[in-house]
Amino acid sequence: MNQLYSALENYYDEMVEIRRYLHQYPELSFQEVHTPHYIANYHEKLGLEVRKNVGKRGVVARLEGSHPGPTVALRADFDALPIQDAKDVPYKSTVPGVMHACGHDGHTATLLVLAKAMSEQKDELHGTIVFIHQHAEEQAPGGAIAMINDGCLDDVDVVFGTHLWAVAPTGKIQYNEGPLMAAADRFELDIQGKGGHGAEPHDTKDAIVIGSQLVQSLQQIVSRRTAPLDSAVVSIGSFEAKNAFNVIADKAKLIGTVRTFDPAVQKLIKDEIQRIADGTALSTGSSISLTYEKGYPAVVNHADEARLVASTLAEIDAVEEVEHRRPIMGGEDFSYYLQHRKGAFFFTGAQHPDVKEPFPHHHPNFDFDERAMLIAGKSLAALALQYVGADAKVSV
Amino acid sequence: MNQLYSALENYYDEMVEIRRYLHQYPELSFQEVHTPHYIANYHEKLGLEVRKNVGKRGVVARLEGSHPGPTVALRADFDALPIQDAKDVPYKSTVPGVMHACGHDGHTATLLVLAKAMSEQKDELHGTIVFIHQHAEEQAPGGAIAMINDGCLDDVDVVFGTHLWAVAPTGKIQYNEGPLMAAADRFELDIQGKGGHGAEPHDTKDAIVIGSQLVQSLQQIVSRRTAPLDSAVVSIGSFEAKNAFNVIADKAKLIGTVRTFDPAVQKLIKDEIQRIADGTALSTGSSISLTYEKGYPAVVNHADEARLVASTLAEIDAVEEVEHRRPIMGGEDFSYYLQHRKGAFFFTGAQHPDVKEPFPHHHPNFDFDERAMLIAGKSLAALALQYVGADAKVSV
Amino acid sequence: MNQLYSALENYYDEMVEIRRYLHQYPELSFQEVHTPHYIANYHEKLGLEVRKNVGKRGVVARLEGSHPGPTVALRADFDALPIQDAKDVPYKSTVPGVMHACGHDGHTATLLVLAKAMSEQKDELHGTIVFIHQHAEEQAPGGAIAMINDGCLDDVDVVFGTHLWAVAPTGKIQYNEGPLMAAADRFELDIQGKGGHGAEPHDTKDAIVIGSQLVQSLQQIVSRRTAPLDSAVVSIGSFEAKNAFNVIADKAKLIGTVRTFDPAVQKLIKDEIQRIADGTALSTGSSISLTYEKGYPAVVNHADEARLVASTLAEIDAVEEVEHRRPIMGGEDFSYYLQHRKGAFFFTGAQHPDVKEPFPHHHPNFDFDERAMLIAGKSLAALALQYVGADAKVSV
Amino acid sequence: MNQLYSALENYYDEMVEIRRYLHQYPELSFQEVHTPHYIANYHEKLGLEVRKNVGKRGVVARLEGSHPGPTVALRADFDALPIQDAKDVPYKSTVPGVMHACGHDGHTATLLVLAKAMSEQKDELHGTIVFIHQHAEEQAPGGAIAMINDGCLDDVDVVFGTHLWAVAPTGKIQYNEGPLMAAADRFELDIQGKGGHGAEPHDTKDAIVIGSQLVQSLQQIVSRRTAPLDSAVVSIGSFEAKNAFNVIADKAKLIGTVRTFDPAVQKLIKDEIQRIADGTALSTGSSISLTYEKGYPAVVNHADEARLVASTLAEIDAVEEVEHRRPIMGGEDFSYYLQHRKGAFFFTGAQHPDVKEPFPHHHPNFDFDERAMLIAGKSLAALALQYVGADAKVSV
Repeated sequence: MNQLYSALENYYDEMVEIRRYLHQYPELSFQEVHTPHYIANYHEKLGLEVRKNVGKRGVVARLEGSHPGPTVALRADFDALPIQDAKDVPYKSTVPGVMHACGHDGHTATLLVLAKAMSEQKDELHGTIVFIHQHAEEQAPGGAIAMINDGCLDDVDVVFGTHLWAVAPTGKIQYNEGPLMAAADRFELDIQGKGGHGAEPHDTKDAIVIGSQLVQSLQQIVSRRTAPLDSAVVSIGSFEAKNAFNVIADKAKLIGTVRTFDPAVQKLIKDEIQRIADGTALSTGSSISLTYEKGYPAVVNHADEARLVASTLAEIDAVEEVEHRRPIMGGEDFSYYLQHRKGAFFFTGAQHPDVKEPFPHHHPNFDFDERAMLIAGKSLAALALQYVGADAKVSV
Repeated sequence: MNQLYSALENYYDEMVEIRRYLHQYPELSFQEVHTPHYIANYHEKLGLEVRKNVGKRGVVARLEGSHPGPTVALRADFDALPIQDAKDVPYKSTVPGVMHACGHDGHTATLLVLAKAMSEQKDELHGTIVFIHQHAEEQAPGGAIAMINDGCLDDVDVVFGTHLWAVAPTGKIQYNEGPLMAAADRFELDIQGKGGHGAEPHDTKDAIVIGSQLVQSLQQIVSRRTAPLDSAVVSIGSFEAKNAFNVIADKAKLIGTVRTFDPAVQKLIKDEIQRIADGTALSTGSSISLTYEKGYPAVVNHADEARLVASTLAEIDAVEEVEHRRPIMGGEDFSYYLQHRKGAFFFTGAQHPDVKEPFPHHHPNFDFDERAMLIAGKSLAALALQYVGADAKVSV
Repeated sequence: MNQLYSALENYYDEMVEIRRYLHQYPELSFQEVHTPHYIANYHEKLGLEVRKNVGKRGVVARLEGSHPGPTVALRADFDALPIQDAKDVPYKSTVPGVMHACGHDGHTATLLVLAKAMSEQKDELHGTIVFIHQHAEEQAPGGAIAMINDGCLDDVDVVFGTHLWAVAPTGKIQYNEGPLMAAADRFELDIQGKGGHGAEPHDTKDAIVIGSQLVQSLQQIVSRRTAPLDSAVVSIGSFEAKNAFNVIADKAKLIGTVRTFDPAVQKLIKDEIQRIADGTALSTGSSISLTYEKGYPAVVNHADEARLVASTLAEIDAVEEVEHRRPIMGGEDFSYYLQHRKGAFFFTGAQHPDVKEPFPHHHPNFDFDERAMLIAGKSLAALALQYVGADAKVSV
Repeated sequence: MNQLYSALENYYDEMVEIRRYLHQYPELSFQEVHTPHYIANYHEKLGLEVRKNVGKRGVVARLEGSHPGPTVALRADFDALPIQDAKDVPYKSTVPGVMHACGHDGHTATLLVLAKAMSEQKDELHGTIVFIHQHAEEQAPGGAIAMINDGCLDDVDVVFGTHLWAVAPTGKIQYNEGPLMAAADRFELDIQGKGGHGAEPHDTKDAIVIGSQLVQSLQQIVSRRTAPLDSAVVSIGSFEAKNAFNVIADKAKLIGTVRTFDPAVQKLIKDEIQRIADGTALSTGSSISLTYEKGYPAVVNHADEARLVASTLAEIDAVEEVEHRRPIMGGEDFSYYLQHRKGAFFFTGAQHPDVKEPFPHHHPNFDFDERAMLIAGKSLAALALQYVGADAKVSV
């Protein structure tokens, strides 16, 4: 283990170099071409067995150890976001309107260099390490499900992944047994009222009044219809009914999101939105149609693997604290891997000590403490080695 | 005419005496026994032809003039209210919890004394005067409809009535062509939700939240669904859902009133209440039942007779001003007479000049300027004589 | 009078020709250049005294009769609308996106040809006729106030105007004593909440929920705070808060209109919007700013002049019915003339008998029955002659 | 231990007898006289040191072991509820309108008999056992705080308690580390509007409309202002505004409850209710006053003692399962003991296997499986002995 840690430390400069290169050439979800090419090329040079175009755009590299053992998958995503980079740094994005604003460049650099370090110690390695480089995490339906369907987990025993987390201090690891991230769904409510002149409301079905009533009624889903101990969010992010001042709107479009951890709660909420839409339509003489798109399921860590994260990572020098945390309401398609295999996902703190108020993920000024990549690399390495060397212990 | 006015002036003391007597012995709607007996007795002593128990409790007296002519009905109501008299006057009500708090005692005294004065001048009278003393104006379905069904308007050509109006100065007459008073309906909304513990909302249908949503939605009936030029009111007067603090209400009862002038608007509003109740029930998974009781229709004056009020009363010395007024949202079952015959209703100001802030009708301290009875008497007399003497002119 | 009517009939073809010419070359409010030039030129050719650039873009022509008498102003507006003409007719608008969609071309043609006919009978004319051609009726602050400030009413005794009304049958005249058209105001409510991620509502002030609550509360202004007999409208025409589905809106903009007939009600409503905005801001921890722009005041006809419209126009052969009508909630800056001088405004029906469902004013397919121009011309002529010849009678 | 278990089993009939006696003579919170007398008497007969009138009505009995050791308190409450007993059993309540509808009779019988059994084995006992019999658990401010202030915990090291739980099967134990029961607060919102006639809303401030708006807005506290992962409830249980149908309410009273687990969330919610009340008052021109009474704090188990419950009780034969459970939103003043001393509270299942749908606590038909008292007794005994015998182990 220590040998591997030393190797990673020696390659830290390369890790930074790769991350900054990727940062300058970001690619949007489902439009990734150069990034997977770069990744595949890197692994090929290491001599690993590489599958390209997995699930259309993903890359899977495979490192067989010299000794028998279980197969551990480590996953990093590599897509970027439709955001204009506003940072003033040498490695700023060169692509207008596209930016690595969530740290996937760092995930990729970490995993590539980890593959290099591990491949150099192949002779001592038990079992097999599968490096999953996933496209399109940022946009449903996501790349994970496609890669799984294309076999990326086929002989895998367990899967680990981490997210660099710029809003937690470098040195901190955050994990949870059970839910870590929420199921994130999207819905639209299209209200068809009847337009008219602003001075003649009685001849209309005022879509803005109807939409406002709907928004008010939707509050009751969380306040009255969801059990107080179940966490859930129903948010309307967009209310579109732009018209002249002296008309009455004929239509309005509401777009929102639902966040849950429990499929039963998710179903309840969907049903309640439908019920409220139907009732509001009846009440107002309008028609209201609901389009509900399920997003990624909740990321639910397996208990044993989550505990393995806690115990294993606590031993790493650079890790100052492994912290149990409440789940966050954001989503991740790592959830699919955990639906198919045992495993766990965790956050690797990446807030530089000098940065008191970090820009949040998805912000035009987002950046992270690159030293956290080294911690992420050591953490994934430790988990993999611990697992392959201690299979019997952890699989209960 | 002047002869008749003089006679009324001479009998003013008796008018006051009768009014004060009635004031001390008020009877509730549909429970009147002594009052109609008193009235019938008075007319019989005058030698008029009297029908008792008209529509169960009304009295109709008939004065045939010595000359041929049309038949004019004059109406006064005589019931009292379930209010405890709080005035400190010698003629205070002697019946606990019952009070003439709307001036019907004055209406009756006026009409009796007018009958006396007119009967003395029978030889000069053209046509016939029908004195309609109506019970139960204060409580739907009211006495008017019963008396009409029992024939009180059978050979009547036109009908007039007035209300002593303690919130307009004595000397003022208020009238309108078309609507003068509103249709006043009553409705109940019974919400059946599902009760439970205050800490467990998800297992309930919270009847208070449902009722509150309903009250909010009902605002849209006037604000959005009624034409801006149509006058309408939808008020919830009562919201009953009294429980312990730590429960969730299983039911709530809303009781309210609707006021309109136009039957089409009345129907629209009833339909919209039903629609909103249905939609809210669907939206909340509750059941909501609507009970809608139509009250008196709007009092709608006939145009020619309203103008006759304006022109005729302007000639009376004691009348300082005949004022066109906007309709009031309160109701009156004089409306039924006007649905069956031509005619008009008007307000006779009865606010004493010394009273700057009069107690409103139906208030425990209600009283009126008794001199207004004389004006009311002269006004009805003038209308009757004008009509019987000038039939051709006014019926267009 | 009959001579004047005949002259108008003889010039009907020219009236149509002028109207269609103007229809092909419409100009937007406050951008009128060619139209006032055309108008001024026409009057100059008739030999009338012409003032150009009155209130910047208006034209006033003056016809002095040969006999002394009062001064009567007749007004026509001449601006067009930012609407793409969708009709398929030879006289279709040639200006992309601009169209005479409210009949102002017809108003102008009528007044021009009326000036021609009257100027030919100058020798018999008593008093003076002032032809007011107004720009910018369609857009607040409107041309009327500017023209009045520039003296267009200076020695005028009375002012009349009409609107061709394509949604009432040709042959019908509609008028009212008192209010005929509403005060039409515009307001904006800018909500500044606090944005955030759709999954983290507790860190935000959700501008969409706040705006929805505001829209619901605004319903109470008409339903609870305005007297049932006062007509008023508060409509929100635009609700803008367009965002991604997974955010919480930081801001929302509501834009709406208020319609009233009575300045006291107008003030009440403005104050209540402010009060509700303040209360909602306090309740939600947001800030809400109200921008309220008063539009044109209500068009309130003077009683005597309105009756003169009724009595005079009833005598015109082509007028089948002069109809008392309820006010409409739309606005007109003719109101300013009536604030400064006696006068009246009325609607001249212009729905061709073959057109069963006419397109409303401001519709891309709007058109009107051109024969109504002749009725409008005769009506204005009759009012002017009646007034100058019968001044004593009508001014009370 | 086994000796103690055997003793309890032997005394089971007495336990039932005591419970049934108490059941027949229930006393309301803060009105307990005979019950504490009965309890004190029982302990005195056992020869224990007894303090009466602790915190006014509580009883504390003290059993000193023959060997040194820590002091363990065991608590049982003994008040009843204002409910009419509707069961048909021989031991039915003899007091009209008062009933042991929550099992406190069973708690008391359990603790008394446990004292008897333990006192018989005093010679082997290490440390001291304090038996806390508490009055007035059902009604805030509760008896616990008064008894603590009166010294009942003074030399106590740890405190345990249990609630017989008729809605979980006999044989099951339910516990949680951290929160087990919620903080339960009570609040009133008094709305002072301005009353009036149902037909004249514009002269009023309609307290029912205001109250309804308030109820709607309060929904946002849980849906928008509380973090999705924090559990909270805001319920309005009572909405009082009972009036005639044709008035507008001048006032309305809302009464409700707030449930939380975290004092910071509790404070947030109280502040938000105040904020919404203030904003709604401003928005509607009314005044709204909030009275907020904090109830019992959340019952938050100490982690080590909770784990001791789990490990110790799992060893008891009659316990079929020790189950980790989510907290419940109901409240208990056992919370105060846990604010002053280490300890834990747990539920002892008491649903008889033959009862498929048990009546809930506080129901007129409530009853429980008496055999659960034996399990409760053994559980408290085991915890006490484990603690006194293993002090070093459990205090970390």
